[in-house]
Amino acid sequence: MTSFVRDQWYVAAYSHEVGREAILGRTILDEPIALYRTEAGEAVALADRCVHRRFPLSESRLDGDNVVCGYHGFTYDKAGSCVFVPGQQRIPRTARVSSYPIVEQDSFVWVWIGDHAKADPARIPRAPWLDDPNYATVCGMEPLDARYSLLVDNLMDLSHETYLHGGYIGTPEVANTPMTTEVDDDAGIVFVSRHMDDADCPPFYSESTGIQGRITRWQDIEYHPPCLYLLHSRIAPQGVLPPSDGPDDRAFHVEVVYAITPSTEHSTYDFWAVARDFALADEGVSDFLRENNRTVVLQDVTALNILEKVVAAEPAGVQELSINIDTGGLAARRILRRLAEAPAEVTT
Amino acid sequence: MTSFVRDQWYVAAYSHEVGREAILGRTILDEPIALYRTEAGEAVALADRCVHRRFPLSESRLDGDNVVCGYHGFTYDKAGSCVFVPGQQRIPRTARVSSYPIVEQDSFVWVWIGDHAKADPARIPRAPWLDDPNYATVCGMEPLDARYSLLVDNLMDLSHETYLHGGYIGTPEVANTPMTTEVDDDAGIVFVSRHMDDADCPPFYSESTGIQGRITRWQDIEYHPPCLYLLHSRIAPQGVLPPSDGPDDRAFHVEVVYAITPSTEHSTYDFWAVARDFALADEGVSDFLRENNRTVVLQDVTALNILEKVVAAEPAGVQELSINIDTGGLAARRILRRLAEAPAEVTT
Amino acid sequence: MTSFVRDQWYVAAYSHEVGREAILGRTILDEPIALYRTEAGEAVALADRCVHRRFPLSESRLDGDNVVCGYHGFTYDKAGSCVFVPGQQRIPRTARVSSYPIVEQDSFVWVWIGDHAKADPARIPRAPWLDDPNYATVCGMEPLDARYSLLVDNLMDLSHETYLHGGYIGTPEVANTPMTTEVDDDAGIVFVSRHMDDADCPPFYSESTGIQGRITRWQDIEYHPPCLYLLHSRIAPQGVLPPSDGPDDRAFHVEVVYAITPSTEHSTYDFWAVARDFALADEGVSDFLRENNRTVVLQDVTALNILEKVVAAEPAGVQELSINIDTGGLAARRILRRLAEAPAEVTT
Repeated sequence: MTSFVRDQWYVAAYSHEVGREAILGRTILDEPIALYRTEAGEAVALADRCVHRRFPLSESRLDGDNVVCGYHGFTYDKAGSCVFVPGQQRIPRTARVSSYPIVEQDSFVWVWIGDHAKADPARIPRAPWLDDPNYATVCGMEPLDARYSLLVDNLMDLSHETYLHGGYIGTPEVANTPMTTEVDDDAGIVFVSRHMDDADCPPFYSESTGIQGRITRWQDIEYHPPCLYLLHSRIAPQGVLPPSDGPDDRAFHVEVVYAITPSTEHSTYDFWAVARDFALADEGVSDFLRENNRTVVLQDVTALNILEKVVAAEPAGVQELSINIDTGGLAARRILRRLAEAPAEVTT
Repeated sequence: MTSFVRDQWYVAAYSHEVGREAILGRTILDEPIALYRTEAGEAVALADRCVHRRFPLSESRLDGDNVVCGYHGFTYDKAGSCVFVPGQQRIPRTARVSSYPIVEQDSFVWVWIGDHAKADPARIPRAPWLDDPNYATVCGMEPLDARYSLLVDNLMDLSHETYLHGGYIGTPEVANTPMTTEVDDDAGIVFVSRHMDDADCPPFYSESTGIQGRITRWQDIEYHPPCLYLLHSRIAPQGVLPPSDGPDDRAFHVEVVYAITPSTEHSTYDFWAVARDFALADEGVSDFLRENNRTVVLQDVTALNILEKVVAAEPAGVQELSINIDTGGLAARRILRRLAEAPAEVTT
Repeated sequence: MTSFVRDQWYVAAYSHEVGREAILGRTILDEPIALYRTEAGEAVALADRCVHRRFPLSESRLDGDNVVCGYHGFTYDKAGSCVFVPGQQRIPRTARVSSYPIVEQDSFVWVWIGDHAKADPARIPRAPWLDDPNYATVCGMEPLDARYSLLVDNLMDLSHETYLHGGYIGTPEVANTPMTTEVDDDAGIVFVSRHMDDADCPPFYSESTGIQGRITRWQDIEYHPPCLYLLHSRIAPQGVLPPSDGPDDRAFHVEVVYAITPSTEHSTYDFWAVARDFALADEGVSDFLRENNRTVVLQDVTALNILEKVVAAEPAGVQELSINIDTGGLAARRILRRLAEAPAEVTT
């Protein structure tokens, strides 16, 4: 099991989940965080525990840009400084909660977990399609009762689509086609590619693209440990390759994005988004892809929740057997282990 | 966290909960206790485990004044002596279960947890209003999935009424008015008073008393650790003070009583009662106060159950920040700690 | 508490539970086992964990006689050898899961837990009535959230029928009639007999046999630790004894069979079957006995689940008090302890 990797940016929420109606509570790497938005629209992330008696600020209410603790009324501004306590004028100097570095980008709210001095927004990996008007995006988040490394394993090896997601997004060719894996150790990125020249078109793509008959199907994974996973999916009628120059406009492009955010040692936020460059205004296609991808994600959730119970019940160090399909997953584990052991090396 | 305080009287039940239809099982300071009433009406408290195979006597039935174990029929008299075993005439001499010292007073059933030789009924603190015909009382008990010290904290500082019970019993003046705290170290009692000269009348009191307009509102707390908490509440039209002699009959008096009984390290029985000296025969007022106080108690239960999870998940010794409003609560903790460490000192 | 006894045969399922529609997952002595049937009808028991990433094979599907892992498609034959892995031709030599010795007999599927070299089918105790055409059998299995030793205790002393199953199968005579206990230490069998010469007929037997009035009721227990428990029950009109020669055809014979299979330290499979030598074709009697025995078993389940919580919450070594009725249960515990400590002695 890979343990938590600190000194990293993690997706805490979608931008649309953070508002003023309620304060959103999320636990990230075991740190409870309260998320809200100021009247001016700025996203704020504070430690989700009142300094007084530890009551969660996410169970509290907003007064302008301030959070008023729901238990005794301790009030914090957006920087976490206490500006009011009940029954007295003097506010203790130590009355403040941590404020987290926070960045909104690509429809996600990213927070920095670790040493705040090291938080560099330039290091946040990108998923630009998610708020690009040339793409239409559906998305969701499913809570997973499993350690995040099981989700990393799952996504790094899409062979499982054939077996776990048969009839939705898997076909025999996925498991049968060899993959190529490359690791950029300096940047800390794992690339896994599987190019199927002549494959069945699964319902997920036949229904959304309208392609009839067999397809050329490319899956190009880019995993930016620990949190961001990108699957560049290219679907085209069988034999149609990208032109040597000009736009690849006979193909359909789907950017599948996952943000893998560890909550506790045994639970994970599984953020998923599907951005497409076709049928942009077609609500029917949006509904279909939202519904279908959620079904696929829930198939993973069911399987990984079972697997978490299996792994948690076994003694540590039970032997796994790895084969070629696991090359990408093993590379990801290696990077995660390195980051967990020596986060500073990568940060500087 | 304050651990259990033994060699003390605790409220195990209301008198009306202990009867002959069923044997009531309650766990007090981790001790399972079976409560019932003899044919003559005497309340009995026995250890809730058959000596034979540990089956709970509270899952059993009564035969006259005796308890017949529901598993194999071992039968105990009201003193806990075994008077019948199946399949043989001879009853082993060691076949007996503990009988707890028990006292019925002020509508409560008190049991002594600790060394029976030290049980002195004269030391049970009083709440005489609860069965005084000059008062009308409503009451209930809510199980709390939180350690009892969180409920003590809660009740010792009523500032939280403004935030957690706003719209019910809290108004801005409660949190804003300073309190005075006194400790009687010899008797082991904490007194906390908050006198509001000119305050909004919360619905809890405007609906029940009929007062219109602002009020003079006094809250006088008397906590007898570990179990009994009294809140003497005086409500009068603004400016009406008690006369220098004669009855205080222009004011409304409400005696709010809590019995705080630890069940396990992480659960508590939250007994609450509200006795009033007005509208004695008015069922509408009784229904209103019963419903409203239960709502308020459940708001506490919800908040404290959340807080228990917070506290249980944090490492020991997380720093709290205390201010003036916590003076009473900190005094209560100090007495509880002293009682937990050296119960004998207080007993003799 | 008796811990697990390995190097023994255990009932994993009824034969009718093992098929081809789904793969049955059972955990026996903490070992997860996947059970299915080949196309030829042979029962198979494999370790329920894929060697690749530990996914349960019981969450998988059959392809002919092979199991195809539901996560990535690793495929195992009925001996547990891996015959297919995704994405490559070469199958690692170590890719295999354990196959359990398995025997179908008397309507049960028995598996051997322990050293496979010691598995001797001749040592499986018999319950021949369960698939004997001269008997009609009803059966079921109830999962128990209690350690198996509590079920052994329960079944070895039927005095509890009077108290826990009064109105169903218990009458006063059961608890009041002394038992005789014999132990065959070499064979490792405990015999407990209770012969009631003149007893009330409980509804369980009056409704099924049609006997009116009092009965002669014999209960002859044969416990073959750890798994098989037989209760030879003979019911006849009061005073009717077996003839000195010839068939005992004025009596009704009911063979009550339990298989007690530990699942985890705190859970057990409670298999129960009731075989009778009368009213063989009477579906009404079958329905009545099925319904009634299940009710009785569920009364035990309720009581033992309560008892498990009691025992699990108590410190180890709490003193029990045993009397004559416990002689059989104590003998069973002694044999179980001996088997747990030195399984090899019995095996050779």
